[in-house]
Amino acid sequence: MNRRELLKLSSYAVAAASAPALAAPSGEPVEKVQRWDAIELTHPGPTAGNPFVEVSLSATFRLGNRTLTVEGFYDGAGAYKIRFMPDELGTWIWTTTSSASALNGQSGSFECVAPEPSNHGPVSVRDGFHFAYADGAPWVECGTTCYAWAFQSENTQRQTLATLSSSPFNKLRMCLFPKWYQHNHNEPPLYPFPRSGETNDYSAFNVEYFRHFDKLIVALGSLGVQADLILFHPYDKWGYQSMPAEVDDRYLRYVIARFSAYRNVWWSLANEFDLLKSKTTADWDRYARILGEYDAFDHLRSIHYSRYQYEYGRGWCSHAGVQDSRMQLGAQWRSDWAKPVVFDECRYEGNIGSRWGNISGDAMARRFWQAAAQGSYCGHGETYLDANDILWWSHGGVLHGTSPAKIAFLRKLLEETIAVGPGPIGFTNFNDDPMGARRANGSVIFYYFDEHQPAEGAFQLPDGKTYTAEFIDTLQLTRTPLPGDYAGNAQVKLPGTPWGSLWFREKGVA
Amino acid sequence: MNRRELLKLSSYAVAAASAPALAAPSGEPVEKVQRWDAIELTHPGPTAGNPFVEVSLSATFRLGNRTLTVEGFYDGAGAYKIRFMPDELGTWIWTTTSSASALNGQSGSFECVAPEPSNHGPVSVRDGFHFAYADGAPWVECGTTCYAWAFQSENTQRQTLATLSSSPFNKLRMCLFPKWYQHNHNEPPLYPFPRSGETNDYSAFNVEYFRHFDKLIVALGSLGVQADLILFHPYDKWGYQSMPAEVDDRYLRYVIARFSAYRNVWWSLANEFDLLKSKTTADWDRYARILGEYDAFDHLRSIHYSRYQYEYGRGWCSHAGVQDSRMQLGAQWRSDWAKPVVFDECRYEGNIGSRWGNISGDAMARRFWQAAAQGSYCGHGETYLDANDILWWSHGGVLHGTSPAKIAFLRKLLEETIAVGPGPIGFTNFNDDPMGARRANGSVIFYYFDEHQPAEGAFQLPDGKTYTAEFIDTLQLTRTPLPGDYAGNAQVKLPGTPWGSLWFREKGVA
Repeated sequence: MNRRELLKLSSYAVAAASAPALAAPSGEPVEKVQRWDAIELTHPGPTAGNPFVEVSLSATFRLGNRTLTVEGFYDGAGAYKIRFMPDELGTWIWTTTSSASALNGQSGSFECVAPEPSNHGPVSVRDGFHFAYADGAPWVECGTTCYAWAFQSENTQRQTLATLSSSPFNKLRMCLFPKWYQHNHNEPPLYPFPRSGETNDYSAFNVEYFRHFDKLIVALGSLGVQADLILFHPYDKWGYQSMPAEVDDRYLRYVIARFSAYRNVWWSLANEFDLLKSKTTADWDRYARILGEYDAFDHLRSIHYSRYQYEYGRGWCSHAGVQDSRMQLGAQWRSDWAKPVVFDECRYEGNIGSRWGNISGDAMARRFWQAAAQGSYCGHGETYLDANDILWWSHGGVLHGTSPAKIAFLRKLLEETIAVGPGPIGFTNFNDDPMGARRANGSVIFYYFDEHQPAEGAFQLPDGKTYTAEFIDTLQLTRTPLPGDYAGNAQVKLPGTPWGSLWFREKGVA
Repeated sequence: MNRRELLKLSSYAVAAASAPALAAPSGEPVEKVQRWDAIELTHPGPTAGNPFVEVSLSATFRLGNRTLTVEGFYDGAGAYKIRFMPDELGTWIWTTTSSASALNGQSGSFECVAPEPSNHGPVSVRDGFHFAYADGAPWVECGTTCYAWAFQSENTQRQTLATLSSSPFNKLRMCLFPKWYQHNHNEPPLYPFPRSGETNDYSAFNVEYFRHFDKLIVALGSLGVQADLILFHPYDKWGYQSMPAEVDDRYLRYVIARFSAYRNVWWSLANEFDLLKSKTTADWDRYARILGEYDAFDHLRSIHYSRYQYEYGRGWCSHAGVQDSRMQLGAQWRSDWAKPVVFDECRYEGNIGSRWGNISGDAMARRFWQAAAQGSYCGHGETYLDANDILWWSHGGVLHGTSPAKIAFLRKLLEETIAVGPGPIGFTNFNDDPMGARRANGSVIFYYFDEHQPAEGAFQLPDGKTYTAEFIDTLQLTRTPLPGDYAGNAQVKLPGTPWGSLWFREKGVA
């Protein structure tokens, strides 16, 4: 096993390249890897010809009778890598398969050990309509969007991470391809494929480009932010939206091989798939199949549309990532699709001329509340005009708006009292109706009143339970306990102010 | 023609009974009646038997080759009356037909003369989607609702009229039958039919009951308020929602005979027709046919629903009177039905426990703006809890809310600059999208931004026209002229605050 390197990607360390080489052949000292951390095997291999196209490499990891197979990828300069995220404790044994004899038939093992307390594993669907970490810790979706932050100045990227670290946002929608659109008319510092003039050499990958994403994904992970990686999008001037099919597929497999061992990765097949006019339904189906086939870790996956809603009931989607501002449909959709519904895009807080980017901060926060009260989830974005044309929605940088504080307030409320997630109390066709949601066991029930301002109300509470009540002003961010206990058909006196929320919590239940 | 009386109901005088008797047989001095005023013929007739059922009476009015026939009605104490609203200038000749010989074959004439300037005639549909007075004066729908005001104390009724006189409201939805519902659990002072215990004598009408409505309709007219008379409704404990079919029909014909000569009458077949479980589609069709057959003046007519939207495309409806708060559908519906759309009920400003009655004043005003920016119209109601349980929505009385001032501001804007009415600029599925509307000739174009707060925008203005621009804060009620002229694809700097409206007015055009 000479020259083979087994690198442990320490929990969200920024880069693997400088980590110490660890020998782990059979019979030698066993390397220890935390559950849900990524390990990386590096082996030298052929440099002749085109390693990206001509060399196949995969590895099978086995724990007991269970095996998982991942593809390796060429990282340039003769280095071939295999990344893996062990999801169970115990001794994993691995074996490689390659078209190159130097890479074929290698094997080894490592010990998967208990993770540090801060490592909860990847996020997955829980209780049908919600999300949770793999270790069972609750995870309340609170996403934001910086489509093209990977292509901005280093300073702006650092700013973005600093901003996220003190924000309520725990998921970031970001494109893997550079973006060309209003406010986004710069060339990226790197290209994903070797590029000469206007011509892309699709036969190879620019490994520096993808190494940069390694760092960004790991950096997000260290902040507890899920990286919702957008694989295709239409805002393109370089050709990436209409590559040959075999290039699309090779790109997807490279990305999966490279990033899927990071536990905070989510896949979004596209931003606004229906605007990618050169792609057909068969293309999208094929991409989905590739994700299913090559992502051994079953990361969360979805797709985002512009005008034509994707049929999220399809099996490959783990959740819906809708673009819509009819928040009242969340409850109906989650019922229709039997999946979590995330309003990934429902307009952005800002003041630009486009209607998708100029709702008020109150309106943005309102959408998070409406989503929550429908048993669904929301996404944030921010588009304030800026002297340097740095708008959070695409570039990252700093936040200027008023909604993040209000969203943070809601996230805390949900995390504090909803173990996994609430379900809606009834459906409505009306965007501005009061909406309600409850924990399945009835221990937490809340209503969001939107534009309504009841001074009193009757609320039917589950039989045999006694509740306390709290009135929340969702814009002033005040919490006011209401006097007394509540049970049965509870008559409640309320302040008679709009944008309120009423929370019932079962007495004696955490 | 002895003993026949021709009464001119002076323009919205409170009662006809005390007006001077006027002789107008052929060859005698010709009575002069203003165009669109009501005249009343009174003739003594049979008192034996049941005059309400056994005596038929109608009169045909002729001007040149045009004839209009109306039914008369029994007003008790041997008095039979015929009311008529002449709609063209000239000498009208009339002749009666009756099953009673004393009432049959009477004839006479009167001169229809130009109206006073304050008399603009009835309101009718204009330009397909809007309303105007018969003399062409614009009429911008701004309705409110006092369902049961006719059954409240005299003091409250006087208060209601006083409140309306200083309000922006120019249409009042009101029930012809008393109401039994939350906050409405009193017996009415009078019943429409003789009543003994719990038993109605449907073979007769209580003329005092209907005389009271004469006064109310006339009083509303004198304030410039259209009386939108609701003919049936489900909030009933007395039996009026499920009378025998022949009683329904007799009631309708009596009401039409009695009220249709008042120019400010509108007909609404029902409040929430779909909750009247004892009635079938065939019943509603028959009622509509009766309106069409017996209302010689073709008053505006519609119907209102609860959960199941009426098919307003049907020919008998002059306009849609919807109950919905999806204001974004106004433009689509007016296009689908090719009629004016009035959101007669879209929630009420207030603070009661029911969601239909507790939106904020800002939210109520918002709905008026949304409707206007969709080329449609809105209706107001108010339901604030009150120590004496007098809620405007049903009882009338006084207004407590903040929306009327904001609605008045909008009405003034529309009247000032929209000759008849604007049409929508595009459709939207989103309740909180910016919406726009424009006068057909392009001389006035406005946008309502709702929750959006653009600091800039590009607005495509019609070729060859130059505009001024004004920014309106629809909640602060401020009007700020924007500097410069605007044309073509106009780039406009805006304040970047929500709930704004941008108005373009063609230079040099009134």
